[in-house]
Amino acid sequence: MKKTLKELSSLISGELSGDPKVTVSGISNISDAGAEDITFVLDPKFLRDAESSKAKVLILPKHLSTSTKPSIKVENPRIAMSIILELFQKSLKGLIGIHKSAVIGASGKKGKEIYVGAYAVIGDRVKIGNRVKILPTAVIGNDVTIGDDTIIHPHVSIYDNIIIGKKVILHSGVVIGCDGFGFVQDNGKRRKIPQVGTVIIEDEVEVQANSCIDRATMGKTIIKKGTKIDNLVQVAHNVILGENSILAAQSGIAGSATVGNNVIIAGQSGVTDHANIGDNSIILGRSGVTHNIPSDTIVSGFPAQEHKKNLHIEALIRILPSLFKRFEKIEKTNK
Amino acid sequence: MKKTLKELSSLISGELSGDPKVTVSGISNISDAGAEDITFVLDPKFLRDAESSKAKVLILPKHLSTSTKPSIKVENPRIAMSIILELFQKSLKGLIGIHKSAVIGASGKKGKEIYVGAYAVIGDRVKIGNRVKILPTAVIGNDVTIGDDTIIHPHVSIYDNIIIGKKVILHSGVVIGCDGFGFVQDNGKRRKIPQVGTVIIEDEVEVQANSCIDRATMGKTIIKKGTKIDNLVQVAHNVILGENSILAAQSGIAGSATVGNNVIIAGQSGVTDHANIGDNSIILGRSGVTHNIPSDTIVSGFPAQEHKKNLHIEALIRILPSLFKRFEKIEKTNK
Amino acid sequence: MKKTLKELSSLISGELSGDPKVTVSGISNISDAGAEDITFVLDPKFLRDAESSKAKVLILPKHLSTSTKPSIKVENPRIAMSIILELFQKSLKGLIGIHKSAVIGASGKKGKEIYVGAYAVIGDRVKIGNRVKILPTAVIGNDVTIGDDTIIHPHVSIYDNIIIGKKVILHSGVVIGCDGFGFVQDNGKRRKIPQVGTVIIEDEVEVQANSCIDRATMGKTIIKKGTKIDNLVQVAHNVILGENSILAAQSGIAGSATVGNNVIIAGQSGVTDHANIGDNSIILGRSGVTHNIPSDTIVSGFPAQEHKKNLHIEALIRILPSLFKRFEKIEKTNK
Repeated sequence: MKKTLKELSSLISGELSGDPKVTVSGISNISDAGAEDITFVLDPKFLRDAESSKAKVLILPKHLSTSTKPSIKVENPRIAMSIILELFQKSLKGLIGIHKSAVIGASGKKGKEIYVGAYAVIGDRVKIGNRVKILPTAVIGNDVTIGDDTIIHPHVSIYDNIIIGKKVILHSGVVIGCDGFGFVQDNGKRRKIPQVGTVIIEDEVEVQANSCIDRATMGKTIIKKGTKIDNLVQVAHNVILGENSILAAQSGIAGSATVGNNVIIAGQSGVTDHANIGDNSIILGRSGVTHNIPSDTIVSGFPAQEHKKNLHIEALIRILPSLFKRFEKIEKTNK
Repeated sequence: MKKTLKELSSLISGELSGDPKVTVSGISNISDAGAEDITFVLDPKFLRDAESSKAKVLILPKHLSTSTKPSIKVENPRIAMSIILELFQKSLKGLIGIHKSAVIGASGKKGKEIYVGAYAVIGDRVKIGNRVKILPTAVIGNDVTIGDDTIIHPHVSIYDNIIIGKKVILHSGVVIGCDGFGFVQDNGKRRKIPQVGTVIIEDEVEVQANSCIDRATMGKTIIKKGTKIDNLVQVAHNVILGENSILAAQSGIAGSATVGNNVIIAGQSGVTDHANIGDNSIILGRSGVTHNIPSDTIVSGFPAQEHKKNLHIEALIRILPSLFKRFEKIEKTNK
Repeated sequence: MKKTLKELSSLISGELSGDPKVTVSGISNISDAGAEDITFVLDPKFLRDAESSKAKVLILPKHLSTSTKPSIKVENPRIAMSIILELFQKSLKGLIGIHKSAVIGASGKKGKEIYVGAYAVIGDRVKIGNRVKILPTAVIGNDVTIGDDTIIHPHVSIYDNIIIGKKVILHSGVVIGCDGFGFVQDNGKRRKIPQVGTVIIEDEVEVQANSCIDRATMGKTIIKKGTKIDNLVQVAHNVILGENSILAAQSGIAGSATVGNNVIIAGQSGVTDHANIGDNSIILGRSGVTHNIPSDTIVSGFPAQEHKKNLHIEALIRILPSLFKRFEKIEKTNK
């Protein structure tokens, strides 16, 4: 596949510099770029490397001085990168058909142009939207609804009675609808509280490898539109995650917590049960949230607190050795 | 399914108030309750919400003043909830038969009324108890024993030579018997120590999604009766977990640690290798246990210490900024 | 299988003591040893237990006084243990053949003596080396290369366009090549940055259960020769892990971080994005690395710092209560 500078520039609404007929056939990061590749300067500090790379064409942020190479200037090179990568990415669109080994239960509905791979197992009364791609070995329970254009990777498990929206991506090993972790002490034993609620995954949600989203005890666990979940993340029963939020790898949200819209929860963080995280807040990496966080707040540490406060306290902790020495000196003179 | 107030009341040994012939057809949390539902007041503070909900019948804790709705009073509404949810839950009991695509090895034993789903793969010399349900795509190695009434969900992997008890539930993606993580430095390389031990999962254990229980190097990793393990939990080689303990999501127990009976290990906690956790102890969320913990102890923090001490120290840490200011003032006057 | 003292001694280059014709038929830890077993004294403190165990033969460290049992003295009993365990371990070498239900795509290459288990699904243009064992239900995408003697356990997912080296072991539930977690804010939505890079797993790498290694955005995520990864570990996009390193359970390495050779990253630790960990460094358990770590350094805590410093500060934190009291006393006298 070859694309001209002009085509690419128009695709990303950029400002072209150089011969519009110049072509590229690949996309690469700066260090690996070949002579027919386009590459990206996401930060001005990488301009020199990009200039001296083999790349044929550069995407530049608007405020940068022009390159000696053919280039396209844009407001946000990261968005441009995303758009051009889509061009060069292999798509699953052409994957259509139902493998003869797929087991599909009774009374379901199948949309147009769907794909069901080898050894996928689908229960009864499952509604599959148009262009849904269910890859080999995925297992889907009874009474599940899957919206249009959703992609379900190998070894995904969806339990019974779950709703998955449109344009959802579930990566390998994801488990949707496992029982919430609920037990009650009864005569010295842990008695299981049956988990009869459901999970709703709204449109454009992506859940990456081996993450788990538990079903509600009663009612619903909900992941709202456009929220993205990284690998090995735990979302417990009755959690509600807002729209366009981000949960990075190995983070965990305990039972009945609610997370607002546009929230970022960084890697290995945790949110305690029943806590409420306000819109636009940011939980920094390895934080442990033990109480409600208002909107538009950045927190860190454990127990998590306002990030600036936490930084201040961490700085003081680091100088405790000198504090102790200074203190002991005064203690002596006060004897 | 319809149940009368009288039937339910007798089932949960409760004190009935209102017309015993009133029926309910569903069970719900307070906020979602419909006009034919029974709901639960787990805490007195929710009584008003329950009263004004659409629910037809309430379950109340014994000490609460009577409701205006038909109700059943019980000692522990959470146990009552568990019992009534069991009534309304779909059971796998009726799931019987071996799918024609299931691959089952030689020389095994099959109990009565078992189910083996599509594309399940079972090794040689596997003993399957009565009423065991092996769901589609579960993979079970050679020389495995599975007790009566155990449920194995899709995408579970059980390695060779493992013993699984009765009434065990293994959820999707669980891995039992993967090699312990053992290597020895040999001539600048990490040489693998073959892991030839086993795993014993005793009766009534539940392991939730994507958790891992490693086989012993030699000897046994043991999960004792009635212990419940949440999602994404790591149990390393040669660990012994006692009875009726709880391991919440993303917690991890390192090699050769032992955990007593009735222990609670909260989410994202860790226990170091060879540590011993006494009976009835509680490891609070995100704790890192670096040494033995006696029985009947609550610990928190990292390194984990007695919870009250840890709270005190955390409170002092939070006022370090003012301590530093006060200290600098004294330092000045002492010059 | 029976082995004589002489055979074993020569195998592990040890110093034999007792009748060379004495045989053992099993290998065990000290506490479980039977009358025909060989066992190991890894630490002098266990000598007495070993002496009084039922074990027939002991492996001893060279500097220990001779045992009353037949024994073999070696430099490093752990290496000897590893070698003898290999003798007694069941091997997959004899597992040869392609199950009739395995689905294998077009245009691939198959080495000698390979095994492909039931319901394994392999894409197009996959190159499988000699003696590769692909266990039941493993799913391998298109354009994947798998080196000689590699073992792929059940429920492993390998996405498209990945290179796996020789003598690699991928345990159950491992996901190689899932998309890196990359999104760009665009008009109030999280726009996916397509992840078109790859993953290279070099020779002799082992990845244990349910761990995830993401593909690069562009370029490569690389796990170098001989590195071992425990259960539930997250390796993000564009990470480079050096040779012979160790990542213990539930640790996580964020995007574009680089880890040197012979590094040990202990359980539940995290390394922030773009950080660089020097050769031979050790990240202790539950550390959170927020910046570059030089070579030959031991760090702990969060934010991780030089371990001795961290220990000192932790000790001071633990005596904060007494510091506060002493301080208040001085404050009074200074009023």
